[in-house]
Amino acid sequence: MSEVRVIPVSGIPELEQGDDLGALLAARCELQDGDVVVVAQKAVSKVEGRVVSLVGVEPSPRALELAGEEDPRHVEVILRESARVVRARPPLLISETPHGFVCASAGVDASNAPGPDLLVLLPVDPDASAVRLRARLRELTGRDVGVIVSDSFGRPWRQGTTDVAIGTAGIEPLRDLRGVRDRAGYELRSTQIAVADELAGAAELVLGKVRGIPAAIVRGVDVRGEGTARDLVLPAERSLFP
Amino acid sequence: MSEVRVIPVSGIPELEQGDDLGALLAARCELQDGDVVVVAQKAVSKVEGRVVSLVGVEPSPRALELAGEEDPRHVEVILRESARVVRARPPLLISETPHGFVCASAGVDASNAPGPDLLVLLPVDPDASAVRLRARLRELTGRDVGVIVSDSFGRPWRQGTTDVAIGTAGIEPLRDLRGVRDRAGYELRSTQIAVADELAGAAELVLGKVRGIPAAIVRGVDVRGEGTARDLVLPAERSLFP
Repeated sequence: MSEVRVIPVSGIPELEQGDDLGALLAARCELQDGDVVVVAQKAVSKVEGRVVSLVGVEPSPRALELAGEEDPRHVEVILRESARVVRARPPLLISETPHGFVCASAGVDASNAPGPDLLVLLPVDPDASAVRLRARLRELTGRDVGVIVSDSFGRPWRQGTTDVAIGTAGIEPLRDLRGVRDRAGYELRSTQIAVADELAGAAELVLGKVRGIPAAIVRGVDVRGEGTARDLVLPAERSLFP
Repeated sequence: MSEVRVIPVSGIPELEQGDDLGALLAARCELQDGDVVVVAQKAVSKVEGRVVSLVGVEPSPRALELAGEEDPRHVEVILRESARVVRARPPLLISETPHGFVCASAGVDASNAPGPDLLVLLPVDPDASAVRLRARLRELTGRDVGVIVSDSFGRPWRQGTTDVAIGTAGIEPLRDLRGVRDRAGYELRSTQIAVADELAGAAELVLGKVRGIPAAIVRGVDVRGEGTARDLVLPAERSLFP
């Protein structure tokens, strides 16, 4: 096993709807086959125009009830982005998104939005975003890379967020060790490793919300394969946590 | 921001109680000030003798009830390592450990154990283990490094495990961005990043349960500071998930 490198991609200007994210990235790094390009969700959402204004949003009675001291229009946008509310303790809302992700505020966020009264939403289909970005990078550089769209999620019982994968392309998000034996011949129990989430977390170490670095390259981990970030969603029937 | 490197420490022999883990590591890598040394929990537990035999364990009625098709003695050991059972769906047990961590099987594991019918337990005090290892590395190398003891935890709603920090020394486990503003001057909401968990996950990318690599160095992330892995445990009164 040789070392893994996490390389920040800096110098990306403030992003706007319609920007060619692939071209902006390709111009600022030297990709190699097998690299994994991790891009912050907010960058993807901005170029895809997934930004809404609070102006004119009519909060529903539910939003008014859940808002606490928050802006009820903000809560209304969160509810519209939620397939269901998992937990609510105003002003904190834990939602399941239409993609199946369980996270705070359905991934809706005002920080690093392109202006006041604007909220950034998750991409409609982050796997498709990753597929498109991968194809564009291949077109521009000829390199076969994996792509992860990452976001910062909280975790029950643990303080702080870690970045996880909400969209993937060209990689196997889970490393499956079922049936693999340890050095003593004992079959491993904890058998699936969420490598895509570990790659997203590793990238976060150089991304940083305030540094203006929306992407990083992880080099040296062979995760080439098929799969989508939906593979990282535990099927409801196997979940111990409703 | 420059790049981050994750460097595996290989060539460590099978570990036994009383082994000088610090000396074994120091002889196989070139540490630099500010490095973070991530060591797999199992390595720490083995040198600390945190291994129990199933032989002679008397399962309690509760263990028999929860065991399903598993060995009830194994379940008994898990219950003894649990401060409380958070969820049970035989044979799956989610426990809170005496340290406050919520994880499967209270961290008790048979894979990579030193022999058949043996189970490896979490260290009694993983923060203290990290402090001791850090002091030993300093003594041997003169380098001021951070230390993380890592373990693979599952997450509600997400498939697969990621490695997280269960013990730390010489680092600030959380990067606190409260009050920090984004480039547009908007105060950040998601304000604490569990950097120690992201470092543990990054290290897992080179560790691997079957490769026999029990430690990695993460270089290039400045996390020097004070704190313990207990800082990563969400206080019960703030938890939305009992």
